[in-house]
Parts: sequence; structure tokens; C-alpha cells
Amino acid sequence: MKATLIHGAGDVRVEEVPDPTLREPTDALVRVLRSCVCGSDLWPYAVMPASEEGNRIGHEFLGVVEDVGSDVSGLKAGDVVVAPFVWADNTCDFCVEGLQTSCRHGGFWGTPGVDGGQGEAVRVPQAQGTLVKLPVGEDSALLPSLLTLSDVFPTGHHCAVTAGVGPRTTVTVIGDGAVGLSAVLAAKRLGAERILLMGRHEDRTDLGREFGATDVIPERGEEGVERVRELTGGDGTHTVLECVGLEPALETAFAVARDGGVVSRVGVPQYALGPVGRDIFLRNISLTGGIAPARAYIEELLPDVLDGKVEPGRVFDRTVSLEEVPDGYRAMADRKALKVLIRP
Amino acid sequence: MKATLIHGAGDVRVEEVPDPTLREPTDALVRVLRSCVCGSDLWPYAVMPASEEGNRIGHEFLGVVEDVGSDVSGLKAGDVVVAPFVWADNTCDFCVEGLQTSCRHGGFWGTPGVDGGQGEAVRVPQAQGTLVKLPVGEDSALLPSLLTLSDVFPTGHHCAVTAGVGPRTTVTVIGDGAVGLSAVLAAKRLGAERILLMGRHEDRTDLGREFGATDVIPERGEEGVERVRELTGGDGTHTVLECVGLEPALETAFAVARDGGVVSRVGVPQYALGPVGRDIFLRNISLTGGIAPARAYIEELLPDVLDGKVEPGRVFDRTVSLEEVPDGYRAMADRKALKVLIRP
Repeated sequence: MKATLIHGAGDVRVEEVPDPTLREPTDALVRVLRSCVCGSDLWPYAVMPASEEGNRIGHEFLGVVEDVGSDVSGLKAGDVVVAPFVWADNTCDFCVEGLQTSCRHGGFWGTPGVDGGQGEAVRVPQAQGTLVKLPVGEDSALLPSLLTLSDVFPTGHHCAVTAGVGPRTTVTVIGDGAVGLSAVLAAKRLGAERILLMGRHEDRTDLGREFGATDVIPERGEEGVERVRELTGGDGTHTVLECVGLEPALETAFAVARDGGVVSRVGVPQYALGPVGRDIFLRNISLTGGIAPARAYIEELLPDVLDGKVEPGRVFDRTVSLEEVPDGYRAMADRKALKVLIRP
Repeated sequence: MKATLIHGAGDVRVEEVPDPTLREPTDALVRVLRSCVCGSDLWPYAVMPASEEGNRIGHEFLGVVEDVGSDVSGLKAGDVVVAPFVWADNTCDFCVEGLQTSCRHGGFWGTPGVDGGQGEAVRVPQAQGTLVKLPVGEDSALLPSLLTLSDVFPTGHHCAVTAGVGPRTTVTVIGDGAVGLSAVLAAKRLGAERILLMGRHEDRTDLGREFGATDVIPERGEEGVERVRELTGGDGTHTVLECVGLEPALETAFAVARDGGVVSRVGVPQYALGPVGRDIFLRNISLTGGIAPARAYIEELLPDVLDGKVEPGRVFDRTVSLEEVPDGYRAMADRKALKVLIRP
């Protein structure tokens, strides 16, 4: 079959790889219907040292079960399923607590011996715990929104949930990428009173407004902080959803948080140290969030996607074939696409 | 009257100062029955540049109301009262939310124009909001424990509460100072299943055991982390109460937190940047805590102190007169005393 490999910064290739087979009785084989490129794929795309061998890549996919191992129940060939971006047994103590990203028998797609999602098919470890069956056909118009359940929408949701967003909460979302916009949508869905979106790409912030942003702040840094403070009577917002992952974004996040508030982050930190000294201590600001246990949220978010109450799939603004995946990476890296959908 | 001033590192003096008077209708005058020295007083005692003028110091006191301004109701001369370590109106939006440390009309003791607590008397701004009446006489044997309501016990409690300590929670407390021991006591009071105390002063950790610590870890750094992990099946604890304020303590705190856990800190950070990068992100560890709004907790903690269910005053292991306050500072700085009680 064909699958995507990354061989270094700027070097993504679609290559012939061995067809996946069932290796463990807990495995399933899934033919991929839709996959996509994640903002986090752009980090290795920016900095990975050259590698002749390359790594399989892609961690968001939705597809059709082709075969299941002898220990897998509840799934059969023909089922349409979505996979969260971390596979997990969904039975260990961490999974039971809703932290499938720390599963005692789980792991990441594209690691050695594990397929990536940007290919024609995937061997799914811990399939019974990992996959969630979707009550739709292979040609459903909902596939893009359902695909977001693998990562970007639950990631925005995790950010809002860990921040404690609810009715009467004011929210600042930092970042107008697909995760930031998903965080807006998630905050709105949780009833947030007011959602300030910090972002400067008008086409993206326009979608942010449709997702529920009440205010858009294109300014950055100190200017952006001042603007948020102006809009909130000087106080900042109860919660701040940091959806970038860079240190200046975290600094801005703390600066626009109201005393006693919470900064939640879901952008993978590109920093080792952060500004968590005396200022936020004296203002009782908390820092929460982390890698989203998407699996924990899929059942909760699914009905609203099926009903069309939320349309997180609107973050996809370009669709490519598997062969065109390298173009998709380039478009996202050059900010010519917000998020690229892949139809293998 | 006499009051304590700090004139620089290692230079604390008890001097004659003007008697306090009512300045605002919201003021009260309180004659101090008991005060004490705080671990946080030791930071200026360690590093403050020399100052001829000096600053008033001390922020924990309990005393007798001598006079009240015309806007103060519910308090009268003769009442025994305790003051939290930040004064506040207790009516603004932050106060109503339980964040009196961010009160819109509050402030700190010992700032310019405001008395410190280590003196014979104090003018109390926002007295009606600040002071809490105590149903005891001037000679109550409970005064030491009641005095801890001004800071150290609610600070430990804040640490435990913001961390989410409850039944079935495992807790690591970092630091065997008065705040760490108070955090042990608070965690126990909140029903924590298991409390691991990291500290190496045996007389202090012995008191920690009496306060509820189930395990004592004298090792520090990596060795200490390994020990906590050994004791917790490799996982660490759900919550970590960081009661030191130094960067290595914060590092240890993250390292001994269980995935999905919470680190709460109440030691004033002596660092500007902390290790909040990818490791804790991938493990979904949160950082919370901050300066404790003691005022928010006094009514809740008071009954257990009055009943003798908790004896937080046991952290005092030396008593000095006002004149002896400089000796008290020295004893605490040299770790010859855990916490020094002052009887003016």
C-alpha cells in the first residue's frame, strides 16, 4: 500500500510500504477513508534532521474496519470507525480516569512498528479500546467533521474543559489555527458567555466568529494584552485557551487572565521554561491542559456532530489525494491552508 | 508604641513608632495579643538592601479591638479578633469569589502608611471585611492555633484545596517548614488517603507524622523523586503540595506528580521561570495555588480549631517578647526554630 513518510524538514514523501497485517489478537486493520495534516506535524516538517529511512507520519484518521484480531469484540469488517490520535486499551486505570494519553498499554501512531494515519490503511493496536464506531456510511457528508473527533475538536474541547469553561465564563482563545478555532467552538458549546479570539488572519478569525467568537483581537504582544484588558474592564478573562505552543503565547495568556483565572494550553510546548514566577502566583493563576485524551471525549461530542449542532469539519479548507500530501504540508506550512483533508 | 522594623538583610529592630489612630471611617485599632514571624519574612531578612528608614514588618496577628471607625459594624472594643495576612473589604467581586488577596480595596501589611503585625498595636484598614471575631478570651490557651488562621494554616489549606485534595487522593508535601506541616494537617483534615512528606529535619517531620503524614522522605532531588515513585508503584501522587518556593522544589514537584495530577504551590516563588515544558504537558500535569486568600477560609477552619480537632499552633516551637523579635528572626533564619510566636 501507499503511506506518507517524513524524511526530514520539508521532505514528506508518499511511498510504497508493506501492507499492514494483524499482528496481535488485539489489532484491527482499518482502510483509511479520510486523514488529515495536523499543526503538530508541522514541527518535524520544520526541524527534523534528514533521515534516509524516514518515519511514518499522520495521527488522525477515520476509516472502514477490514479485519479484527481474535480478542477484539464489538467491531467487525465494514464498520466505519474513527481513531483518536493516541491508541489506548481504554481499560487501564488512567483510561478509566479519562486520561487515555497516559494509557499503560497505549502509544502514538507513526512510532517504530506502528503505522501512521496518512496512508491507505492502518494496523490499529488495542483496537477495541481505541476505535469508536460511527453510525454513518462511507460516503457520509459528515466525514470531515467526524474526522475532527480524532484530534482537533477534542483538543479544543480538552482545552476548554480543563480550563473550566462554562456558562458565565469569559474566555480568551490565543491562536487562530485549527486548534484555536476548535477551542472557540468548544467554548461556545460549553456555554461561554464571551469569547475573545486573538488572531490576525482574517479568513480564520471570520470562521472563529461563526464558531462563536464575540470579539476578535488582531493585535499581538503587549498591544494585544492591552486590547483584551480594555474589552474586559481591565480585568482579563476567567479562562485563557492557549492554542499555539510558543513561549510568547504563554506569556500573553498569563497577562490576559483574570486574577484567580486559569490558563489552559493544548499547543505542544516549544519551550522548556515558562513564566510561572511571582506575577501569576500573586494573582492565583493556574496553568492546566496538556495533550488531549481525545478518546475520552468522542462519545460526548459525537451526537452534536451527527446532529449538525457543531460543524468542526469547517476547519478543513483544502482537500488532497494521498499523492498530493506533500503539497498539503507545504500549503499548511506556508499558511495557504488552515487544515488539509486527505482522501486516500 | 513599639513595633518591628526591618532595615536590611539581617537587621531587624524594635523601635518606638507613633501610636496608630483611626484615619478612615473603615479603620479599627487592634492591640496585638499574639503575632509571629513568617517564613516569607525571611526573604527580606536574607536579601533586603540596607535602609536607614526601614519598613514595618509582620503580617500575622491576633488581638483585641480598641476602637472602630464610624463605618465599621459588627465589631466593638474588647472583641478578640484575628486578621488575615492581606486586608480586604470582603465585599468586592474578587472577595465574593473567595479571592481576597486580589481585593479591589485591599492591600498588604507593612506597606507605606500601613502598620505591620509585629508591634504593640495595628491600625486595620477595611476592618469590617478584614477582621474575624473569635469567641475566646484574651488568655485562651487556643491563641497560638487561632493565630495560625492569619496565614500559615489557611496557606496550607489553600494549597490542599486548590490541588483538589480529598478522600482517595494521594498527596506529596514538599517542605517541612511551618507551611509544609500545615499543608500536611490540611490534607489530612480533607481526608487524604496517603500523605508523603518530603523533608529532612527529623524534629519537623516527626510533627508532620503527628499531623497526618503517612510516609517521610528525607532524600532530596532525584533520590527523593525515586523514593516517592517507589512508594507509589512508580506512578507518583495525584497531588503535590509545593511549600518551599525554590525552583528545584518545583522541579521535584512535577517529577513526583502522577500523570493527570496537580502541583499546587504556596511558597512565594523565588524564580521567574519554571519547568513547564513538554514533560508536564504530555503528562497533563496542572500547576495551581498561589498566595492564599486566608480570609476566605477562616470561618471554615475556625470550628475545628476551637474544638481542638486540629492544633495548627503546634508549629510554634519558640515564644519571644516584642523586644526579643530580632532573636526570633535569627533563630528561624538559622533553622533553630520552626516558627516563632511573639507576645508583645
